[in-house]
Amino acid sequence: MNKINVAEKLGSFSEHFTPKVIAEVNGQSLKVVKALGEFVWHSHEDDDELFWVISGNLKMCFRDREVMVGPGEMIVVPRGIEHKPVAEEEVEVVLIEPAGLLNTGDAESELTVHNPERI
Amino acid sequence: MNKINVAEKLGSFSEHFTPKVIAEVNGQSLKVVKALGEFVWHSHEDDDELFWVISGNLKMCFRDREVMVGPGEMIVVPRGIEHKPVAEEEVEVVLIEPAGLLNTGDAESELTVHNPERI
Repeated sequence: MNKINVAEKLGSFSEHFTPKVIAEVNGQSLKVVKALGEFVWHSHEDDDELFWVISGNLKMCFRDREVMVGPGEMIVVPRGIEHKPVAEEEVEVVLIEPAGLLNTGDAESELTVHNPERI
Repeated sequence: MNKINVAEKLGSFSEHFTPKVIAEVNGQSLKVVKALGEFVWHSHEDDDELFWVISGNLKMCFRDREVMVGPGEMIVVPRGIEHKPVAEEEVEVVLIEPAGLLNTGDAESELTVHNPERI
């Protein structure tokens, strides 16, 4: 029951596309991640994924449109929906998703993080 | 799949201790709430509750200690743990908890909100 400072957690690492767990609540994990560049198209068959942007602007691409998500804004990607996050500048995000969710969903690659570090 | 602006949601109402749902992810709700004054001692037998402070300072009282949680900080209250949120100034918070969680847990009173509004 210690408090968790989001900015401090984000300040503790610099690599991109490597989510790190900062909290858990009822089986969902809160993960901090820094993004820069294009991620891969993927979907999560059984799980929703929430992106809460802390700094920067995240472009969330869907097959039929794009949504720009800025600081203090969030977007929920429902299960089964293909998406590709794109960060033209560095973006800091908090993810809310099941503890075991693979970041690349159904598109495993060298970007896949299997066991996100707890920080 | 529209984006959600947290500050805009918080700016759309003024009453205290009335959580309002802004998003849902895998059965958990994100709720915005404004707090001012003392809430009631209560616990949630089966559910964790996460408090993410957006503005102001929230004093989370436990039976054996208190934790001050400031802007950009969060605290997870595990299931079964008695707690009492206290806001000496107005505090804006995002809660992450099961959709149907009663705000007053096992201590129903006039403060209980049975069906939080979706905004």
